[in-house]
Amino acid sequence: MSAVEPILLTPGPLTTSARTRQAMMIDWGSWDDRFNQLTASLCEQLLAIVNGAATHHCVPLQGSGTFAVEAAIGTLVPRDGKVLVLINGAYGKRLAKICEVLGRSFSTFETAEDEPTTAADVDRLLRADNGITHVALIHCETSTGILNPLPEIAQVVAEHGKRLIIDAMSSFGALPVDAQQVPFDALIAASGKCLEGVPGMGFVFARKESLASAAGNSHSLAMDLQDQHAYMAKTGQWRFTPPTHVVAALHEALLQYNEEGGLPARHERYAANCQALMEEMGNLGLRSFLPTAIQAPIIATFHAPKDPRYQFKEFYERVKAKGYILYPGKLTQVETFRVGCIGHVQPAEMREAVAAIGEVLREMEVLDI
Amino acid sequence: MSAVEPILLTPGPLTTSARTRQAMMIDWGSWDDRFNQLTASLCEQLLAIVNGAATHHCVPLQGSGTFAVEAAIGTLVPRDGKVLVLINGAYGKRLAKICEVLGRSFSTFETAEDEPTTAADVDRLLRADNGITHVALIHCETSTGILNPLPEIAQVVAEHGKRLIIDAMSSFGALPVDAQQVPFDALIAASGKCLEGVPGMGFVFARKESLASAAGNSHSLAMDLQDQHAYMAKTGQWRFTPPTHVVAALHEALLQYNEEGGLPARHERYAANCQALMEEMGNLGLRSFLPTAIQAPIIATFHAPKDPRYQFKEFYERVKAKGYILYPGKLTQVETFRVGCIGHVQPAEMREAVAAIGEVLREMEVLDI
Repeated sequence: MSAVEPILLTPGPLTTSARTRQAMMIDWGSWDDRFNQLTASLCEQLLAIVNGAATHHCVPLQGSGTFAVEAAIGTLVPRDGKVLVLINGAYGKRLAKICEVLGRSFSTFETAEDEPTTAADVDRLLRADNGITHVALIHCETSTGILNPLPEIAQVVAEHGKRLIIDAMSSFGALPVDAQQVPFDALIAASGKCLEGVPGMGFVFARKESLASAAGNSHSLAMDLQDQHAYMAKTGQWRFTPPTHVVAALHEALLQYNEEGGLPARHERYAANCQALMEEMGNLGLRSFLPTAIQAPIIATFHAPKDPRYQFKEFYERVKAKGYILYPGKLTQVETFRVGCIGHVQPAEMREAVAAIGEVLREMEVLDI
Repeated sequence: MSAVEPILLTPGPLTTSARTRQAMMIDWGSWDDRFNQLTASLCEQLLAIVNGAATHHCVPLQGSGTFAVEAAIGTLVPRDGKVLVLINGAYGKRLAKICEVLGRSFSTFETAEDEPTTAADVDRLLRADNGITHVALIHCETSTGILNPLPEIAQVVAEHGKRLIIDAMSSFGALPVDAQQVPFDALIAASGKCLEGVPGMGFVFARKESLASAAGNSHSLAMDLQDQHAYMAKTGQWRFTPPTHVVAALHEALLQYNEEGGLPARHERYAANCQALMEEMGNLGLRSFLPTAIQAPIIATFHAPKDPRYQFKEFYERVKAKGYILYPGKLTQVETFRVGCIGHVQPAEMREAVAAIGEVLREMEVLDI
């Protein structure tokens, strides 16, 4: 264990504040009133971020974000439903994979990894197939950092009388979504992303009527959000053992989120992080994969240097030795690497990280950027 | 947040050591080599406890223990398999519920909550129904603390050429199971029990050949243990975001487990905790629900005092104010409460806890015990 741990410039798990981690120094009884109050306060604060208290329930779930995504599809899409999955990266593909494994009918619409799905696409697809009951999409695709036009797509889905499932894993808390303006049946996120908690739980904002009529849909006992919610509404407790320390950390992270100024302040800091990153990387000659207009201030993808002396593994290890953990690329066609803009970090640290990247490229004698 | 937090005398989440919690003060990159090494070391240490390295894989899974139990059934029981579920408490019933939700054929055999299943029962049931492919049971049923005769049952199941799935959630690490002596296809436990980690992940010891032939069985993407293992074997990483802080805490807890002397020492301490508890509760006149012969040193169930001045809620709150968190009963027929013997606690603390219980009963003027 080194004295100074590296800063995580990754899309989560990410760097948390000492205060958030300190909240894990207490062992909570999962049956105790104090813990129930923690859970209730957590759900209330989460619902406020999305302005959803009037229309949606917040259902927390043990496990990673993918568990919550699977749970939302399994619980809210009836067994005879059909899902249109919008894809422009690895997480969109995972949505389709979940539908396949769960045995839900689905069709896919895939655009290039640097091309957002448009509302016109969705309109056309819904006109062409009246059997579709639900549309599922990724708000900000972590594969690249691309932002899909959620409000416009949600509008079209609602106009067709269809239901929307939003994987907002890497955007929730930093990019605004108002449940009263953007109609959705489910919006899914997790503890260890823009809220700056630690990983170990997800949560689903589920439309109240949809959840109420979802009994018996789920393929799974543990992932049945209707049952999870009904039990929690009755007892104040989680159905199965909650990750108590993770819950406590997220609660503490939310207090800090609100102290910082909530979503506008969080968005502003991440946007400043992203801008500092882009400027400094540009100064090194490193090129962003996405045009600025569709780049969310969450994670940025950069083209790998062309120089044969560049090898990602060595580059990664050398940057890590200087105190920053980067993230590998996830594109199949183009060699890239990624740098996260989220977590308990400031623009100054982004600039220092890029300075370290520059030093490493010089040490490796990577000249052809 | 009070200065001294209460001691949890619960079946998990339980009281952990400060050193274990301290391990959560670092943010780990889930893609980083150092974290992969942590996961590999964790699995190696877990396999050693069950002497399973030659025959079994350790597959960790995000979520609570129930997630891991569902994953084991969903992954290892083929879709045309049939499970005989042995029940003497709430967790046995949950096994049956999982089979029902997953659509696996099953039959149940239920004994009273103070009556262990016998090997002779299992022998008779397997003779009567040749369609059974798997037997599933709870090693130590947390509803009461009852211990089922695992080695004898495992022997009979093997003689019939059937496969065994063991929910060892509350016994693993404290009660010995040797994979070379007790044949099983899956043994399931979790981080926040006798290993004294924090809750948030489970793990399944799965027989290598059974796991290798399990592709396509699973009802779920997130809970597919075959896929989880295959990906981890190839990359060293978890398929989906791991609960990094929970993993680090369990790793640190395992180091302490081995320093303490491994399973024999852990069993000895819990047995001493249980004995101290029983003696002191007996001195107060409080009666244990189970006879000593079938009482595992994990959690003990006590008859509630008959006195009408006894109300569990007030009793619980008053004991909590003195620094100890108890656990409610889970029996439908008899009013009881439970006291855990596990966690980072010593016999002296058990005696102090019972002293507090005695004071509370006097304060409440509960005379008719």
